[in-house]
Amino acid sequence: MTYFDIDKVKYEGSKSQNIYSFKYYNPEEKIGDKTMAEHLRFSVAYWHTFTADLSDPFGVGTAEREWDNLNEMDKAKARVDAIFEFMEKLNLEYFCFHDIDIAPEGSNLKESNENLDVIVDLIKEKMDETGKKLLWNTTNNFTHERFVHGAATSSNAEVYAYAAAKVKKSLEIAKKLGAENFVFWGGREGYESLLNTDMKLELDNLANFFKMAKSYAEEIGFEGQFLIEPKPKEPTTHQYDTDVATAHAFLQKYGLDDVFKFNIEANHATLAGHSFQHELRYARDNQMLGSVDANQGHPQLGWDTDEFPTDVYDTTLAMYEILKNDGLSPGGLNFDAKPRRTSFKQEDLLLTHIAGMDTFALGLRVAHKMIEDNFFENIINKKYKSFSEGIGKEIVEGTTSFKELEKYAHKIEKIENESDHLEVIKSQINQYILNINNGE
Amino acid sequence: MTYFDIDKVKYEGSKSQNIYSFKYYNPEEKIGDKTMAEHLRFSVAYWHTFTADLSDPFGVGTAEREWDNLNEMDKAKARVDAIFEFMEKLNLEYFCFHDIDIAPEGSNLKESNENLDVIVDLIKEKMDETGKKLLWNTTNNFTHERFVHGAATSSNAEVYAYAAAKVKKSLEIAKKLGAENFVFWGGREGYESLLNTDMKLELDNLANFFKMAKSYAEEIGFEGQFLIEPKPKEPTTHQYDTDVATAHAFLQKYGLDDVFKFNIEANHATLAGHSFQHELRYARDNQMLGSVDANQGHPQLGWDTDEFPTDVYDTTLAMYEILKNDGLSPGGLNFDAKPRRTSFKQEDLLLTHIAGMDTFALGLRVAHKMIEDNFFENIINKKYKSFSEGIGKEIVEGTTSFKELEKYAHKIEKIENESDHLEVIKSQINQYILNINNGE
Amino acid sequence: MTYFDIDKVKYEGSKSQNIYSFKYYNPEEKIGDKTMAEHLRFSVAYWHTFTADLSDPFGVGTAEREWDNLNEMDKAKARVDAIFEFMEKLNLEYFCFHDIDIAPEGSNLKESNENLDVIVDLIKEKMDETGKKLLWNTTNNFTHERFVHGAATSSNAEVYAYAAAKVKKSLEIAKKLGAENFVFWGGREGYESLLNTDMKLELDNLANFFKMAKSYAEEIGFEGQFLIEPKPKEPTTHQYDTDVATAHAFLQKYGLDDVFKFNIEANHATLAGHSFQHELRYARDNQMLGSVDANQGHPQLGWDTDEFPTDVYDTTLAMYEILKNDGLSPGGLNFDAKPRRTSFKQEDLLLTHIAGMDTFALGLRVAHKMIEDNFFENIINKKYKSFSEGIGKEIVEGTTSFKELEKYAHKIEKIENESDHLEVIKSQINQYILNINNGE
Amino acid sequence: MTYFDIDKVKYEGSKSQNIYSFKYYNPEEKIGDKTMAEHLRFSVAYWHTFTADLSDPFGVGTAEREWDNLNEMDKAKARVDAIFEFMEKLNLEYFCFHDIDIAPEGSNLKESNENLDVIVDLIKEKMDETGKKLLWNTTNNFTHERFVHGAATSSNAEVYAYAAAKVKKSLEIAKKLGAENFVFWGGREGYESLLNTDMKLELDNLANFFKMAKSYAEEIGFEGQFLIEPKPKEPTTHQYDTDVATAHAFLQKYGLDDVFKFNIEANHATLAGHSFQHELRYARDNQMLGSVDANQGHPQLGWDTDEFPTDVYDTTLAMYEILKNDGLSPGGLNFDAKPRRTSFKQEDLLLTHIAGMDTFALGLRVAHKMIEDNFFENIINKKYKSFSEGIGKEIVEGTTSFKELEKYAHKIEKIENESDHLEVIKSQINQYILNINNGE
Repeated sequence: MTYFDIDKVKYEGSKSQNIYSFKYYNPEEKIGDKTMAEHLRFSVAYWHTFTADLSDPFGVGTAEREWDNLNEMDKAKARVDAIFEFMEKLNLEYFCFHDIDIAPEGSNLKESNENLDVIVDLIKEKMDETGKKLLWNTTNNFTHERFVHGAATSSNAEVYAYAAAKVKKSLEIAKKLGAENFVFWGGREGYESLLNTDMKLELDNLANFFKMAKSYAEEIGFEGQFLIEPKPKEPTTHQYDTDVATAHAFLQKYGLDDVFKFNIEANHATLAGHSFQHELRYARDNQMLGSVDANQGHPQLGWDTDEFPTDVYDTTLAMYEILKNDGLSPGGLNFDAKPRRTSFKQEDLLLTHIAGMDTFALGLRVAHKMIEDNFFENIINKKYKSFSEGIGKEIVEGTTSFKELEKYAHKIEKIENESDHLEVIKSQINQYILNINNGE
Repeated sequence: MTYFDIDKVKYEGSKSQNIYSFKYYNPEEKIGDKTMAEHLRFSVAYWHTFTADLSDPFGVGTAEREWDNLNEMDKAKARVDAIFEFMEKLNLEYFCFHDIDIAPEGSNLKESNENLDVIVDLIKEKMDETGKKLLWNTTNNFTHERFVHGAATSSNAEVYAYAAAKVKKSLEIAKKLGAENFVFWGGREGYESLLNTDMKLELDNLANFFKMAKSYAEEIGFEGQFLIEPKPKEPTTHQYDTDVATAHAFLQKYGLDDVFKFNIEANHATLAGHSFQHELRYARDNQMLGSVDANQGHPQLGWDTDEFPTDVYDTTLAMYEILKNDGLSPGGLNFDAKPRRTSFKQEDLLLTHIAGMDTFALGLRVAHKMIEDNFFENIINKKYKSFSEGIGKEIVEGTTSFKELEKYAHKIEKIENESDHLEVIKSQINQYILNINNGE
Repeated sequence: MTYFDIDKVKYEGSKSQNIYSFKYYNPEEKIGDKTMAEHLRFSVAYWHTFTADLSDPFGVGTAEREWDNLNEMDKAKARVDAIFEFMEKLNLEYFCFHDIDIAPEGSNLKESNENLDVIVDLIKEKMDETGKKLLWNTTNNFTHERFVHGAATSSNAEVYAYAAAKVKKSLEIAKKLGAENFVFWGGREGYESLLNTDMKLELDNLANFFKMAKSYAEEIGFEGQFLIEPKPKEPTTHQYDTDVATAHAFLQKYGLDDVFKFNIEANHATLAGHSFQHELRYARDNQMLGSVDANQGHPQLGWDTDEFPTDVYDTTLAMYEILKNDGLSPGGLNFDAKPRRTSFKQEDLLLTHIAGMDTFALGLRVAHKMIEDNFFENIINKKYKSFSEGIGKEIVEGTTSFKELEKYAHKIEKIENESDHLEVIKSQINQYILNINNGE
Repeated sequence: MTYFDIDKVKYEGSKSQNIYSFKYYNPEEKIGDKTMAEHLRFSVAYWHTFTADLSDPFGVGTAEREWDNLNEMDKAKARVDAIFEFMEKLNLEYFCFHDIDIAPEGSNLKESNENLDVIVDLIKEKMDETGKKLLWNTTNNFTHERFVHGAATSSNAEVYAYAAAKVKKSLEIAKKLGAENFVFWGGREGYESLLNTDMKLELDNLANFFKMAKSYAEEIGFEGQFLIEPKPKEPTTHQYDTDVATAHAFLQKYGLDDVFKFNIEANHATLAGHSFQHELRYARDNQMLGSVDANQGHPQLGWDTDEFPTDVYDTTLAMYEILKNDGLSPGGLNFDAKPRRTSFKQEDLLLTHIAGMDTFALGLRVAHKMIEDNFFENIINKKYKSFSEGIGKEIVEGTTSFKELEKYAHKIEKIENESDHLEVIKSQINQYILNINNGE
C-alpha cells in the first residue's frame, strides 16, 4: 500500500508552479563543509502528522487519513508504515514520538506496555531496513485524565509513580531504538492557580523525578542527550519550564544543569514574550542548545498555533544561531507543527513539510552566506571594540574595581557613542535573502 | 548650508555594500502603467524626522541635529530648509505635519497663529520653488497640558473651543498649501477610565466637531480628503477610533461615512490585535482606504514603536491591497516612523528612509508580479466558485430563503470541502519574493 | 433519580464555612423595586454544564457525570432531567442551549431534526411542569467538520445551505419553547488567513443570512430578540463579530441595526482588548445591550477560559451598566462558564454556579447602593458641567461653529482643568464593596 | 512653608465621604504580634512623587507643584522639605531615591557629586531630626543620553566606567544615610535588537559590575541588602532581568545568588506575563524575597503604567506572601507609583498614597485573618497529603527510584484524583474580604 504520492503533489496557485516541490532544499548539496541534510537534520513529529485529527477547542477533527477507520492496533501499525514511507518520500532522516502516539493505551500499565512492545518491535524492524533514525522520544504524561493535576508535579503520589513508570518504559524504548536524545516537555507540570498550589514541593518533586530518570538511564546504558522543552502556559496557566532562562534557573538550583540541554520551540518562545532567536541565543551562550522544535506561532494569537515554519526571517536567524552553535547534533529540527485545520487532506502532510523544509533550507543558505561574509561578526566587533583593549579589557577580565573605574571616569572629556543603524542591518538582511537566488 | 550628504551614506555591515543606497526603489521605473513614484507617493513626517528628539519614557532625547541649538523660530526655519533638502535628496514628493511641528506655540492662540503664518509662508515659497507637495496636515491637540482630558472629547468646553480654533487654523493652512488630505488622529480622544467618563456625550461632541470641521472646510473651499487615523490605545487607555471597524461604526452612526476615509497605520493595526493587511482590506472593501502611515510595530512589545518598515511580507501584502484599491491617490505612504533611539545620528534620517522606501518598493514589485499572475485571484476564484452559480448565486443575489435552502440541504448527499493549503500559499509568497531579483 | 444534593455541598476550606451556600444571593429579596431574581435573570448553559467534558487541547475530558455511560438518546434525556433538577435546586429560572447540546446529530439533517423533536418535546413538557423558561437558544454551526470554512461565511454554498437549514430548525424550536431571545455567535464566521479569503463576499453572504433568518422568524411569528455575540478570535484567527463596535459597523452597513442587540460575554471583551464594562457601555449607549454571557477570562492567558465570575469589581461594574440600562429583560445573565478542568466532580456544577451567582448578587448590591448615592452620576455631572450651559451647551446642541468657537477661544484667559482623582474613585469603590455587609 | 494640608483633603464623590482619609490603615494597631506600621514598612518614591512631571510619550507634564519654578538647586532643596513633610503627614517611615532624583546633574561627574553632597547633607539632617529612614537608594544609569546603549551592559567601555563611578557614589550615599537596602534596576541593561548585540559579553560584564559593587560595599562597610528589580521590557525590547526566575538563573550562573535578593514590582510581574503573587512566591520559595515596589498595571495595556495599588485581591495575596515570608524587613513596600496624568494636583500626591496605603492595609487585614484560620494551609495540606507518608514521603525524601515506582504503579487499582474546587476558593476569598469590616 502507498500513502503518499510525491510526484503528484500539485497546487494550482500559480500557473508556473503546478507541481509543488522543493525549491531550496537539496539534501546532498554542500553548504560549507556539510551537506544540507547534515546541517538540517529534519525530523517528522509522529503526533501532529500521524496521530492528530486537527480538532480544536470548538470543533472536531477534520483530518482525512486512510488509516482512520482501522481498529486501534491496526491503525498503530498502519501509521508505522505510513511514517516510514513519508520519511522516504521526503528524504527525512529522523522522527520523534511520545509513547501514546505509537501505540494505544491499554486498560492498565501492563497492557499499555505490551502494546508498546509490539509497535516498538515493528518500528525497530523498519529502522533497520531503512536506516531512518529516532531523533528523540518522550512520554505523554498529560493527555490522560489521571494527569489532571500534573505528573511529576501532581499533588497525588500515585500519579507521580505512574508517571515515573511511563518514563521508565520510554527510556527503555529510547535505548532499544537508539534515540539520540530524550525529551521532557512539561505537559501539565505547572499550575492552574497558585491559590491551591505548593510550588516549592512540586518543583522539589520534579527535580527528584529528573534525578531518578538520569539514574535509570545510566543504569540501562542509555546515553542520549536529555532535553527540556520550555513553554510558558497552555494547558496550565503557568508551566514551570516557562522559558529557557526559567528552566536554567531550575536546573542550576537542583544541580541538573550538566544533565540537560534545551529543546527550543519557536512558538513557545513567542508565547513567553521572546523572539525565537532570543531563546536559541540564550541556550547557545550557555552551551545548552540541544535541539529545535521547528514551527511558528501567529503574532495576533495567544495560544500555541504550531504552524509550519514559512517565515524566512525566523529561519534565517534560527539557522544563524544553529550554525554558530556548530550545528545541533545530536539534536535536530523536528517539525512540531500541524497543518491548519483547513488543510485537512492527506497530501497536506507532504505540502506542509515541503513548505517547512524549504523555508529552513532557505534560512540555512542565507545564514551561511552571512557567516561567510562575517556580516554580524563585523557589526559586533566594531560595536564592542572598546572592550578589546585598555580599561575595557580590564573590565572583561575582571581585573579592575569601582575605584579605578571612577578615576577613569573623571578623566573622560566627552563620551562619544556610536549609532547602531539598526534599520540598515534589517535592510541588509533583506538584501541577503533576495540575493540568494543569484548565488551572491 | 547643506544638511544631508546622500553620496556619503556608508555603512560597513558588509564588504560589498559600503555605500548604502536604494536597491529596489527607482522612482522613474514603470511598474505596470505607472512609475514607482506614482505608485508609492512617499511622504516624510515632519514630527519624527525634523522635530522629535528620540526621547522615551525612561530617557531624554539622543538625536543629534544641526539645528538643535538655535532659538525657537530660527530652529523652525532651519527645519523648513532641512526638510526640503531632504525631500530633494531622497526623491520624496510629499510631506506631512501637525501645526506645532512647524512653528513654536506662542503664549496664546494669537501668537501661535502668527508663528504659524511666518513658517507657512516660508513653506509655501519652498513648495512653489521645488514642486514638493503637502500630502496632509493635521492638528496636534494632545501634547499641551490643556488637552489633559482630550480635545474634541474634553470634559472642559473651553478646551473644546480651543481645539476647534486650532483645527480651523489648520484647515486654513491646508487650503493655503493645497494639502491633498486632512488628517484627524484622535490624540487624546478617548478615556483613561470609564469610571469617570460620559462616553456618549464625548462621542456626540466629537461628531459635532467633525461636522463643524466639514462645514468650515466647505466654507473656505478646501477640497482635500478628510481622513481618520484609528488607534486603540496610548496615550489613553481606550482611544475612541480604536480600529477601522470601530471608527466605521462611529461614522455611520453620525452620518459621516461619506465625509471621511481612513489613514491606516501599520503599528496601530497590530496594537489593535489585527494585521496591517486586515485594516487595509476592511477599508478597501468599504471604499474607505484613503492613505497609509507606513511603519511597523514590534511583535513582542505592547506600545507604538513606530519602526521604519523593513518587513517585506508586510509591505508586499500592503502593496497588494493598495494596488487592488487602484492606488491611494490623493493619499500616500507617509513614513510615520522614527529611527530607533540608538540610531541617533543625522545620517540615520537618510538611512532609515532609504530602508523604508526600499522595502516598500520591493513590496510593490512582488505584489505587482502576483497580480499579473492572478496569484491570489486564482485562489479566491477557485475557492468560492460554488457562489458563482446555482444556489450559491442565489445566496449572493439575495433571492433565496431559509425554506429553499433547507430543501436544498435535505438533498445534499455528502458535503465535500476543499483543503485551503494555506502553507503552500505562504511558501509561494516566499518564492515570489525570492524571484524578484531574477525578474521572474 | 436525583443528581444534585444541594444540602450536602461541603467544602472544607475554612472552619467556619463547612456548608458552602449563598451568602449574597437571595432571590426574593427586594433591591430597589425589583427582587434579586428579577434583576439577575440567571441562566444555566446547557453546553458547559450538561454536555461538555472539560477536555482541553492537551487532554481528554475529566468531568465525572452520572449520565456519561448512557447511549446517546438516553444521555440526552437524562440531561433534560438533570438540568431541570439543577435549575430547581439553585433557583435558576432560565436556561440556554445550542441545537446539538440537547440532542445527538443524526447521519443527516432529517435524522438530526427527528432527534431534536424528541428532546424538544421532553423539554417543553418539563417547562410546562416547572415554569422554567428558555432565555435563548442558538445553533451550533461550528463543531462539525462540514463547517471547517465557516457556515454563513463558508466558501462552500452547500455548507451555507446546510447552516441555514439548521438555523431554520432552531428558530422553530425557539418559537415552540417560547425563547425570549435567539443568539447568533459567529462560531467559525471569520478567517484563518486573509491570504485566501474574500472578506467582502463572506460578509455580504452573512448579511443575507441574517436577513433570511429575520424573514423566517417573522413568517413563523417568533418574536424573541435577535442577538449577536461578539468575539475577536478563536477558533478562527479573526472572527468577523470582533467586538461590539465592529459588529455595530456591520449591522449599520447592512441595515440590520434595528434587528439585533448584543449578547456580551466578559471573556470575549477582554480577548478583544477591552474591559467587560466597556463593551456593556458601548451597547447601552446605543440601546443595543441585550443580554450577557456571564463569565471571566484570565488576565495572563490569551484564549477563552470561560471561568465562572468571581471578581466582584467586574460584577459590580457590569451590574451598574445593567441597572442603568433598566435591566436586561428580555435578556439575562447566562453562565457561559465552565468549571476548571481540575474541578471535575458533579458537585462542582453546583459549587461553581453558587460562586458565580453569589458574585453577581454581590455586584448587584454594591451597584445598587452606588446608584442610590448617585456616586458615579455626581462625578460625571461635576466633571462635565461646562457642557450644561453657555458655549458648552451650544456645542452639545450643535448650534455653534468653528468661527464662533475660535472667537470664544481667543477670549479665554487661562484654561483651568480639574483633576480627575481617579485613584480616589477606585478607593471609594473598595469602600462600597466592604460596606455592603454592614448594610451601609 | 507648608506643602500638604492633610486635614483638607476632600473629595466629593460620595455624600458620606467628604473627607477622604484612611479607612483601614492604622499604624499603631496590632495585627498579630506586630503593628500595622511594622508589617507594612511603607516608603515614598522620590521620583514619582517629587521629581516627575506626569508627562507621557504624547504629552508634556501636567503636574502642578509649588516648587516648579525654582532654580535647580533650590528646587532640589524644596523637594527635601516637601518629602519630609509628606512622610510626617502620612505617617510614612521610609523613602527611596535614585541619585538624580535628589540633585541636578552637573556638567561632569565631579559637579554632579558636589550637588549630591549638598543635598545628601540636607537629607541627613532631616533624617536625624525626624527619625525617617532610607529604605533604599539606587543609581539612575538610564535617563542621560550617554546610556543610550545601556550602562553596565553598554557597548562602550567609557560608559561602563562612568556608570561604575555613579554606583560607587550611590553606595557611599547609602552608607552615609544608613540605607537598609541598595537596588539595581536594569534601566537600559538589555537590548534593542539581538541583531547587533553580544548578549554573552554584556552579561559577563554585568556580573563583573555586580561583583565590583559588592567588593566596594564591603570595603566601605555598607551592609544593606543588595536587591535586583526584574522587568521584562521597556525601555529596551528585552531587559536582561526579565523576571525573578531569569535573574535567578543569572545570579546562580555567576555565583551571586547569596549577594542579592529581589525587589519585586507588581507591574513588572504582569508585563512579564506573571501574576504579582507568582513573582513573590518564586522569590519567597528561594529565600530571596527582599522588598516590593507597590503598584499595579492595567490589564489592557502593554506598558508600565505604575498605578497606585487599589485592587484588594492583589494586595491580599501579596500580603499573604509577605506574612508567610515573616515580613520583608529590611525591605519594605515602596510606592513606585504615580498619579494618573489626569490627577495632576499637588493634593493628588496625598490622595493617591492614601488609596495605596489603605488598600495594602486592607490586604494585610484579610491575609492575616486567612492565616489565622489556616485557610490556604488547610487546602494545601489536604491536597498534598499523599506526600506525607508511604511512597509519597519517599519521593519527597529522594529515597526511591523509577524501578520501585514502577512496581508501585503496577499495583495501583484505580487512581482517584480530588477536585480542586478552585471556584469555591475564590468565592471564599471574597467572603474574607467582605467580612473584614465585621471583624470576623
